[in-house]
Amino acid sequence: MKITFLGTSGSMPTKDRGLPAIAIRKERELLLFDCGEGTQRQILKSDLKIGKLSKVFITHLHGDHVLGIAGLLQTFSLLGRDKPLEIYGPPGISDFLKAIIKTVKFTLTFDVKVSEIEKGLVVEEEDYYVTCTPVDHGVYTLAYALIEKPRPGKFSPEKAEALGVPKGPLWKKLQLGKPITLENGRVIRPEQVVGKPRPGRKIVYSGDTRPCSEMIKFAQGADLLIHDGTFDQNLKEKALEGGHSTVIDAAKIALKAGVKRLAIFHISPRYTEEDVKKLEKEIRDIFPASFISYDFLTIHIPYSS
Amino acid sequence: MKITFLGTSGSMPTKDRGLPAIAIRKERELLLFDCGEGTQRQILKSDLKIGKLSKVFITHLHGDHVLGIAGLLQTFSLLGRDKPLEIYGPPGISDFLKAIIKTVKFTLTFDVKVSEIEKGLVVEEEDYYVTCTPVDHGVYTLAYALIEKPRPGKFSPEKAEALGVPKGPLWKKLQLGKPITLENGRVIRPEQVVGKPRPGRKIVYSGDTRPCSEMIKFAQGADLLIHDGTFDQNLKEKALEGGHSTVIDAAKIALKAGVKRLAIFHISPRYTEEDVKKLEKEIRDIFPASFISYDFLTIHIPYSS
Repeated sequence: MKITFLGTSGSMPTKDRGLPAIAIRKERELLLFDCGEGTQRQILKSDLKIGKLSKVFITHLHGDHVLGIAGLLQTFSLLGRDKPLEIYGPPGISDFLKAIIKTVKFTLTFDVKVSEIEKGLVVEEEDYYVTCTPVDHGVYTLAYALIEKPRPGKFSPEKAEALGVPKGPLWKKLQLGKPITLENGRVIRPEQVVGKPRPGRKIVYSGDTRPCSEMIKFAQGADLLIHDGTFDQNLKEKALEGGHSTVIDAAKIALKAGVKRLAIFHISPRYTEEDVKKLEKEIRDIFPASFISYDFLTIHIPYSS
Repeated sequence: MKITFLGTSGSMPTKDRGLPAIAIRKERELLLFDCGEGTQRQILKSDLKIGKLSKVFITHLHGDHVLGIAGLLQTFSLLGRDKPLEIYGPPGISDFLKAIIKTVKFTLTFDVKVSEIEKGLVVEEEDYYVTCTPVDHGVYTLAYALIEKPRPGKFSPEKAEALGVPKGPLWKKLQLGKPITLENGRVIRPEQVVGKPRPGRKIVYSGDTRPCSEMIKFAQGADLLIHDGTFDQNLKEKALEGGHSTVIDAAKIALKAGVKRLAIFHISPRYTEEDVKKLEKEIRDIFPASFISYDFLTIHIPYSS
C-alpha cells in the first residue's frame, strides 16, 4: 500500500502545492481522498494510473476539496470509461454533482454511484473497509479511516514438516485455514502450523478540522495519520476561527492517538518551503515520527508485524 | 497589450498543457477568455497579477472551458476581494454559477456580475469594446473580438512650431483634439497639427469551432486570431464530428480573414511536442505568420500603424 500526496496546500493553490487530494494505491485499485481543483492534472504528472481509480472519498463540500471531481468525470467520459465510479461524501455531495452534470454540458459514459454518508462504515471490500466520523470544521466534515482486515498468520514450514505434512497442496490448504487429514489418518488443524492472524494497516485522514477528541479516538494506533496542519502556533486563534489545526495541534493529536507516523497536510499558502522546514523541526520535538507532506511525495506503509 | 496563453490543451490537460484560458493584459485591467480547471494556478505560475482580473469571457459551457471559475471565485473571496468581477458567457452560465455557489460552500466577498449574451456588443469601455458572435461547435459557442477604439493621430511638433504654437499646455490641448487661440488671436484647429486617427488593435478568439464562414467575417483584418486547431488533417472527420477544426482549417480561415497573425490553440492531448513542431511547419506553408501556442507563452501585439 502506497500513499501519494497529490495536493497539499490549504484553501488556495501555490506554485509548488496543489489543492487537497491524497491517493492510496492498493493492489487492484486506486482510492482518492478529496479532489481539489487540478487533481486530474496532478494524477497525470504522477506515476499513478488514472484508469485504476475506483473510489473517491470527499471530506467536505468546500471548493478546494471537491471542485476537481467535475473535470475528472469529464475526462473519464472523454476516455470512454465504462467502469462505475463510486463517490462518497457528506450530505450535499449528491446535489453538487447533479448541479454540475446538469449545467456543464457533458455526457457520462459510466455510472457514478454517489453515496451520502454521515458516520460509521462507508464501504467494505474483501481485504479492507473504510469508516468515517464527523470532525470539527464548521461545515459538516468527515475524517476517514482505511482499515485493512487482519491477514492470515505466518505459515511455519518447519512445523508442517515436523508434523509430517508433505510440501504441496496440503500446505496451501492449511495456509487457507482449513484442516487436513494425512495418509495415516491423522488430522492436522491449521493453528498447529499457522501463527495468529496479523493485523492489517490503518490509514487515517482527518480532512479539515480543529483539534478534537473525536480525532484522537478515531486515529487510535493508526500506521499513518494525515492531519490538518494549516497554521503555525502564532496563528492558533486564526486556526480555531477557520476550523483548522496548527501543526503543533496535529503533533499533539498524533501523540495522544498513539499513531506510528504523522503527515501534516493542508499547509497555508503563506508559508515558504523554508518556513515549512522550520515548522517540521518544531513538530518533531513533540512527535518525532512526523513530516510535512509535499506534492507528489509517495510513501510506502509497512506492516507493523 | 500582451496576450498570455495560460492553458492550450484541448478537452483534457496534459503534463505540459493546461485547460483553455487566455489572458489579455491591458494597461489597467486583466481580461480572461475561458477559464478551464486549474486556471487560477496557471495565473499564479505566470507573471500576471490575479487581483487585476476584471472581466471573464466564456465561450461555451463545456467543462474544460469553464470549470476553473469556481475556484477563482473562492480564492478571490479568501483574499478578501471587494472589486466586482464581470463574467460574460452564453445562456446557461448564470445557472452554472448559481449552482456552484449554492452547492459548494463559500461566501462571496464581492459582486459577481453575470451577463448572458448571444451576439453583438458584449461590453464597451473608454478605449476598447468586446463583441461576440456564435460559431459552429454543437453547443452554443461564442467567438469574441476585443477591438480597441482608434487612437488620436500623431501630433507634429514641427507643424505646431511652424504655426507659432508655444510648447506647453496648448500642445496638450491640440493633442486632445481641441482648438486653441494664440495670443495674436489666430485660431489653430487640431487637424492642422495632428494626423488622422490611427486604428487600434483587434484580437479575435474563436472558442471551439468547426471551420465556418462566420469566423472569416468576424476575424476580418485582426491583428491576432486565436483559433481552434484540435487535430491534424488526417483526423478531419473526427474534428468535424466533435465540432472542432484541424490546424489546416485554422490556417485557411486565417488566410481568408486576412489576419496579421494566427495562434493555434486547443491542441489535442494526443500530440507530443515533436508532433506539434511538425504541424506548425505544415500550417506555415499555408499561412506563414502562424504558430501553435503553448502554456505561458506571452506575446506583445504591436500597433499596425
